[in-house]
Amino acid sequence: MEREQALKIVREQMHEKRYIHTIGVMETAIKLARQYGVDEQKAELAAIFHDYAKCRPIHEMEEIIKRENMPSDLLAHNKELWHAPVGAYLVKKEVGITDPEILQAIAYHTSGHEQMTMLDKVIWVADYIEPGRKFPGVEEVRELARQDLNLALLQALKNTISFLMSKNQRIYPLTFHTYNAFIKEETIG
Amino acid sequence: MEREQALKIVREQMHEKRYIHTIGVMETAIKLARQYGVDEQKAELAAIFHDYAKCRPIHEMEEIIKRENMPSDLLAHNKELWHAPVGAYLVKKEVGITDPEILQAIAYHTSGHEQMTMLDKVIWVADYIEPGRKFPGVEEVRELARQDLNLALLQALKNTISFLMSKNQRIYPLTFHTYNAFIKEETIG
Repeated sequence: MEREQALKIVREQMHEKRYIHTIGVMETAIKLARQYGVDEQKAELAAIFHDYAKCRPIHEMEEIIKRENMPSDLLAHNKELWHAPVGAYLVKKEVGITDPEILQAIAYHTSGHEQMTMLDKVIWVADYIEPGRKFPGVEEVRELARQDLNLALLQALKNTISFLMSKNQRIYPLTFHTYNAFIKEETIG
Repeated sequence: MEREQALKIVREQMHEKRYIHTIGVMETAIKLARQYGVDEQKAELAAIFHDYAKCRPIHEMEEIIKRENMPSDLLAHNKELWHAPVGAYLVKKEVGITDPEILQAIAYHTSGHEQMTMLDKVIWVADYIEPGRKFPGVEEVRELARQDLNLALLQALKNTISFLMSKNQRIYPLTFHTYNAFIKEETIG
């Protein structure tokens, strides 16, 4: 699918602010893909569609999680997590994208997972550091991303866990497991 | 078992610094037990024996974890965790303490768990705030413990997770689950 066609599809799914974020993720993901030897076309498409379900009604996402037997612990955790796996599902069903690597990168772009591919990492980090992001610590992760994608992702995971703890919010177990997997990779690998 | 007899037993299991720490945990646990309506004698015994296995050789602890079918993920995580479940096992076997509440408080005094009893919480917090502890953040947890044992434990868990992340160390899953359980308790309960 061409970029213009893909952008036209997601433009109809979201309000302007979210669309501008999507463009930022797309541009960042393409740069990271080029730098780290990842398929640029896959990175472009995964980035364009990563928030496809972000503006869907909560009850629709909940219904899909239940009906499609997605991990049931999703429902016990922050709703902010839901749009990622639901997005992968809808992008396949409604847009017709079937590439499992692209769908996986979309499905895990909030939690991460324990065996992330380079494409998964590119999308996760691009979503965190795209130029519209302003939160504390983002500049450090941008700098790390220029040197080492794993270190950038690890620092972003730490920031995310710290932020959630500071707000007394529960942390999705897969986010913890992703952190532990990266520590292992960094220590042993 | 009387205090003097119990102290004599643990004195033979550890070097002086660890014994002084044990006395600090005992005194703190008794105060907390009194404050929060927990059985003071159980708190005293659990505190005295909480580090019973701390100075055992690593290979002995490893052997016991394997032989007694303790959670196998222990072996993949920090060795600092091992003395707690191994201690509960040895205190039962070698000292003859069979009270399951005391043994549980010993077994989970480093990781915590998702359904901690008041006795478990008293021992966990006493171990963290006893007067010999000097690390950053301990004074805030001491202050919280005067007001609310759950908030003290939650803050100490956050400090522990933050500290481990700052050292690029893996975090034992049960520690994460304990954090999430406390957030749930605080939010809903």
